[in-house]
Amino acid sequence: MRLIRSIRTMQNSALALKRRGKKIAFVPTMGYLHEGHLSLMRTARRKGDVLVVSIFVNPAQFGPREDFSRYPRNLRRDLALCRRAGADVVFAPAAKSMYPEGYSAYVEETRLSRGLCGARRPGHFRGVATVVLKLFAIVQPDLAVFGLKDFQQSRVIRKMASDLNLPVTILAVPTVREKDGLAMSSRNTFLSPSERKEALCLRRALLRARRMAQAGERDARRIRAAMRRIVEREPSARIDYLKIVAGEDLRSVRRIEPGAMAALAVFIGQTRLIDNIKLK
Amino acid sequence: MRLIRSIRTMQNSALALKRRGKKIAFVPTMGYLHEGHLSLMRTARRKGDVLVVSIFVNPAQFGPREDFSRYPRNLRRDLALCRRAGADVVFAPAAKSMYPEGYSAYVEETRLSRGLCGARRPGHFRGVATVVLKLFAIVQPDLAVFGLKDFQQSRVIRKMASDLNLPVTILAVPTVREKDGLAMSSRNTFLSPSERKEALCLRRALLRARRMAQAGERDARRIRAAMRRIVEREPSARIDYLKIVAGEDLRSVRRIEPGAMAALAVFIGQTRLIDNIKLK
Repeated sequence: MRLIRSIRTMQNSALALKRRGKKIAFVPTMGYLHEGHLSLMRTARRKGDVLVVSIFVNPAQFGPREDFSRYPRNLRRDLALCRRAGADVVFAPAAKSMYPEGYSAYVEETRLSRGLCGARRPGHFRGVATVVLKLFAIVQPDLAVFGLKDFQQSRVIRKMASDLNLPVTILAVPTVREKDGLAMSSRNTFLSPSERKEALCLRRALLRARRMAQAGERDARRIRAAMRRIVEREPSARIDYLKIVAGEDLRSVRRIEPGAMAALAVFIGQTRLIDNIKLK
Repeated sequence: MRLIRSIRTMQNSALALKRRGKKIAFVPTMGYLHEGHLSLMRTARRKGDVLVVSIFVNPAQFGPREDFSRYPRNLRRDLALCRRAGADVVFAPAAKSMYPEGYSAYVEETRLSRGLCGARRPGHFRGVATVVLKLFAIVQPDLAVFGLKDFQQSRVIRKMASDLNLPVTILAVPTVREKDGLAMSSRNTFLSPSERKEALCLRRALLRARRMAQAGERDARRIRAAMRRIVEREPSARIDYLKIVAGEDLRSVRRIEPGAMAALAVFIGQTRLIDNIKLK
């Protein structure tokens, strides 16, 4: 496994691989890898000839008051995990080389990125779309794999790739969970033991929403109220958003239609967690 | 020479060329080709193995009150000119396939695109950057050639390509002029015989600016005043902007520094013309 820090080296070796007809599978990450990332890598490993994993905590997708500087990092451990998962290349560029002084080009998706996390984190999806386009240009993937915990992100990226005619297939892989149902996230490491227990309220609220929908409830407001009650029971929980959206365009809906999803973001203490579920 | 209308066909044949190690040179145009475009094609022809020319009047770069619908078009004549210039492929997609319903991904350059034409035509350079990125993704060029009449455009695109790490070299080629000095432009066809004569005021004002700078004038305001007088002599002329800018970041300057440029946009009757000059 090769660790590449330089953008030019990565791009040149990707272009050389493409000329040799190799299929590049790509998993972009912010590092501090967990079983969720490893699941993305296993999928990518199966689908491509060469597996490239990027590790880059992207400053452009964090707001000024968000947790960029304290986002967890552990490159040595990440490299060991990538090696074990069969990565051929780990690309870990410096922030200065990705965003040199005077940087001024951005990519924006203007429909799917408006609501949910986009509404709560202005500029977040612009930062995500920009870095993903840059990484695609550098790594030249035939396919890229994203996780469904960040389902809005995967939808935004798929739309960006399709609208901009990028020759890359976007795969979205199911969320990997802890045994008790908590969605895996690098940010879970911030949780104190008591917060860790409270964090289960996200999954509990989502399961409750799905049960209600499956039992025939069609009124999104009633489902949301039930979800809210579950979350608000926890002393450290503060709801950032809690929505029922149409699967197609991610707009809030009043009636549960086929494809509808429940999604929420909750602060547990200082830590913002997200999760989502298909209501079937 | 092959005419391709389908995005997928163009992209697949570009990717196949790349796998065979071919160097693709690309000239994106809005058609209604003139000697300026042919000069871009000659440069591209020399630098690449395969010459692809696109012909696409890009709706995204026209404002709601601008001349998109009346922009001149003549595909048959354009194809003959491309064939004579040695193009291997002409890519002429339909607007509906480039911007399908629900289209929502855009590229923006936020520094160099602010002033000059960008200030007068809001959204113009977002439309330009977006379509050029799309065309790059479809045509997969190793190099792309632009004209210096649209020098701000060439600077915006070069910055976009560099910031987004696109593996493409951007070349900018000198403006081709009519014998009397008028910069070639597809829009010149709109000019009446009397307007055609008045249109020379752009070039005359620019030459005057350069002579003044070469003679030691350093005060941008005085140069601009002299330019303005030349343009305002013409009865059909209306200045859209008239600027002296720094070569580096295209910001207006008060003092003439090395690299400074004069640039102007003037309506001659209904027709908006632009031109520019290096002041040396």
